[in-house]
Amino acid sequence: MKYRDAGVDISRAEDALARIRDRVRATKRPEVIGDIGAFGGLFRLTGSDTVLVATTDGVGTKLELARLLDRHEGVGVDLVHHCVNDALAMGAEPLFFLDYFSTSKLEPEIFARVVGAMADACRAQGCALLGGETAEMPRMYAPGAYDLAGFLVGGVARDRLLDPASVREGDVLIGLPSSGLHTNGYSLARAIVAKRALVEERDERAVLDAPRPELRGGTLGDALLAVHTCYLEDVRALRAAATVRSIAHLTGGGWEGNLPRALPASLGAAVARESWTVPPLFKLLAEWGRVLDEEAFDTWNMGIGLVAVVASADERAALRALPDAIRIGAVERTSGAHRVRWS
Amino acid sequence: MKYRDAGVDISRAEDALARIRDRVRATKRPEVIGDIGAFGGLFRLTGSDTVLVATTDGVGTKLELARLLDRHEGVGVDLVHHCVNDALAMGAEPLFFLDYFSTSKLEPEIFARVVGAMADACRAQGCALLGGETAEMPRMYAPGAYDLAGFLVGGVARDRLLDPASVREGDVLIGLPSSGLHTNGYSLARAIVAKRALVEERDERAVLDAPRPELRGGTLGDALLAVHTCYLEDVRALRAAATVRSIAHLTGGGWEGNLPRALPASLGAAVARESWTVPPLFKLLAEWGRVLDEEAFDTWNMGIGLVAVVASADERAALRALPDAIRIGAVERTSGAHRVRWS
Repeated sequence: MKYRDAGVDISRAEDALARIRDRVRATKRPEVIGDIGAFGGLFRLTGSDTVLVATTDGVGTKLELARLLDRHEGVGVDLVHHCVNDALAMGAEPLFFLDYFSTSKLEPEIFARVVGAMADACRAQGCALLGGETAEMPRMYAPGAYDLAGFLVGGVARDRLLDPASVREGDVLIGLPSSGLHTNGYSLARAIVAKRALVEERDERAVLDAPRPELRGGTLGDALLAVHTCYLEDVRALRAAATVRSIAHLTGGGWEGNLPRALPASLGAAVARESWTVPPLFKLLAEWGRVLDEEAFDTWNMGIGLVAVVASADERAALRALPDAIRIGAVERTSGAHRVRWS
Repeated sequence: MKYRDAGVDISRAEDALARIRDRVRATKRPEVIGDIGAFGGLFRLTGSDTVLVATTDGVGTKLELARLLDRHEGVGVDLVHHCVNDALAMGAEPLFFLDYFSTSKLEPEIFARVVGAMADACRAQGCALLGGETAEMPRMYAPGAYDLAGFLVGGVARDRLLDPASVREGDVLIGLPSSGLHTNGYSLARAIVAKRALVEERDERAVLDAPRPELRGGTLGDALLAVHTCYLEDVRALRAAATVRSIAHLTGGGWEGNLPRALPASLGAAVARESWTVPPLFKLLAEWGRVLDEEAFDTWNMGIGLVAVVASADERAALRALPDAIRIGAVERTSGAHRVRWS
C-alpha cells in the first residue's frame, strides 16, 4: 500500500506550491529573513534583536481517529506541540499561539475538550494562547467532524537562530525518539486499519480497541492517539550542552521530506537504519498494509521525531545531555537526487 | 428568517468560549496586554517598543458561494483584508500573514487561484506572506470543498495602540462604507437564496446569475462575492487627521456583536439608522428572507464595515479626510443590556 492509495499525494502539494512561489516571494519585506521552505518563517522586527518565527500546522486525519474513539483532548495538545517543534527547528522558543476551530455545528462540550486541552498545553510550554476563531459552517463538514489549525509565533535572539547553512560535512545526526506517528501519515494508517478490519471481519473500532501482543498488550487506538512529543525541554538541554547547527522536525513527507530542510543544498545525510529500533506500531502498520520500507520512511517518522545536527566534537556531550537520544548518522557530501542515504 | 434557522447559532459559540475562558487566561505571560475579546491579541516583546497584534479569521460559507460560481480569487483576498482590518482595529499595521488551506483532494489549479490572490493581496497591503500549511484530508470535505484560515501579525508603537478605555461620552462615531456582506452572515444569505430559488422555480445558480433591477442591473452573485473592503489607507488618513480613540470592525455578530468591543463597559453607542442608506443587497436579502431589522443588524454590517470612535472636536477633520465616511452617531452613557441604541 502507498500513501497515494490512501488519497494523499505529496506531489500535488508540490505542484500547487510551485504555481504560487513567485507571487509569495513578491510579498517579501526587508524584515523577512530566509526563503520559503523552512520549518518557520523568519521576521526581524526593526529596532529589535529578536527574530520572530511564525509557523502554522494542522492535525490532519488524526482528527477523524480522535472522533471515532471519542478522545478529543489529544489533538488539541498535538497541534500545540507540532507548532512548538517547528519553531524549535529554527532555534526559537514559543511566545504565543492562536487557533482556528471549524465545524458544521458547534458542540460546546467537544470544543471545550479540544481547545481546553490546547490551552493547557500552551500553559505547560509557557506559551500564551492569544486568540482564536471559531467557525460554524453548516453542511461543510460531515456531522460531528471538525477541522483545526494552529498558528504559533516564537522568538529567538538573532545570534541563536539555527541556520542550515552552518552545517558541515562530518557533523553528527542526533535522533530523538517519537511517541508514535505524531501528526503525520494518518490517512495511510487509517486506510490500513480499514483493510485490516476486512481481514479480521470486524469493524474499525474493534480493530482499534483490541489488545495486541505486538504492542505489549496495548491497543492500536492508544498507540495511534499517543500525543505528539514536545521537544522544548530536550532542545534546551541539548543547546546548553552542545553546538547545535540545525534541527529537522520529522513531519509530513517523512525523512526525505524533512531532513534535507536542515541541510545546505550540497550536503546530504547518511543514516544508519540499524541505529535505532523501529517501534512496533510502525512495524505492525507496515506489515498489515504491505508498505515498502521506502514508502514507510517517506511517510512516517519511524520512531525518530526530531533530528539535531550537532558538531562532531560535541557528540558525547549531546548524548550525555539527552539519555534517550541516539546517534543515527552523519552529514556527508551528496550528488544524488535523494539527500538521505540509508546505510 | 433568522440566522439560527440557517444553522448558525452565536449563543453556541459564546457557550463554548465561556467553558474555556479560565484555562485560556491561565496561559497569560507578562508580555500579554489586555484581555480576551478584543479584535486582536496583544503581545509586547521584551526590550521593544513595538506591540505585536495577532489575529485569526476564516471566510465562512462565502467559500461555498465562490465554489458554486467558480470564482475562487476573491476569498483569498477577503481573508487577508479581514485580518488586516482586525489588526487596524487595535491600531496596528500589518507585518506578516500565514494561511491554512485544507481540502480532501488538493487541486493545484484551484489552490493557486485562491492562495495566489491571497499573496497578491498581501503584497498590495505591504504584508509578507511568511508561511502556510496545505492539508489533504481524504473524505473530510465534500468533493471540491476547501476551508481556509488566515493568521496575521501586525505591529504598533505602544503609544499608538488604540484602547477602548480612552473613549469618552460625546465622542462621535464615524462609519466607513462596506462593499457588501464582507465575510459574515453568508449562511443566512445562502439559506435565503435557496428559498428564493424555490419561489422563482429555478436553481440557485440561476438566481445568483440573473440581472436584478434592484441591484442596478447587477447580479446577486456579484454583489455577494464583492471583496471584503480593506480599510488600511482609510485608517491611516483618519489617524493623520483626527484623534481616533478606538475602532470596531463589523464582522460576525453584526452591530451589537462588535461595536461594544470598541467601548468601555459603562458606555454605549447611539446610532442613527437614517444617517446612511442601507445598500440594496441587504434590503433584497431581508425582503426575500423576511428578516426582521434587529436580526439583520445583528448578523450583517448593513452597509458600514468599520466604525471609528473619534474625539468630537475632530469630527469635521475626520469627515474631510475621508469623503466617503459618515457621522452615524455618538457615544453615550448606557445601563441597558443592549449597548447599541438605534435612534
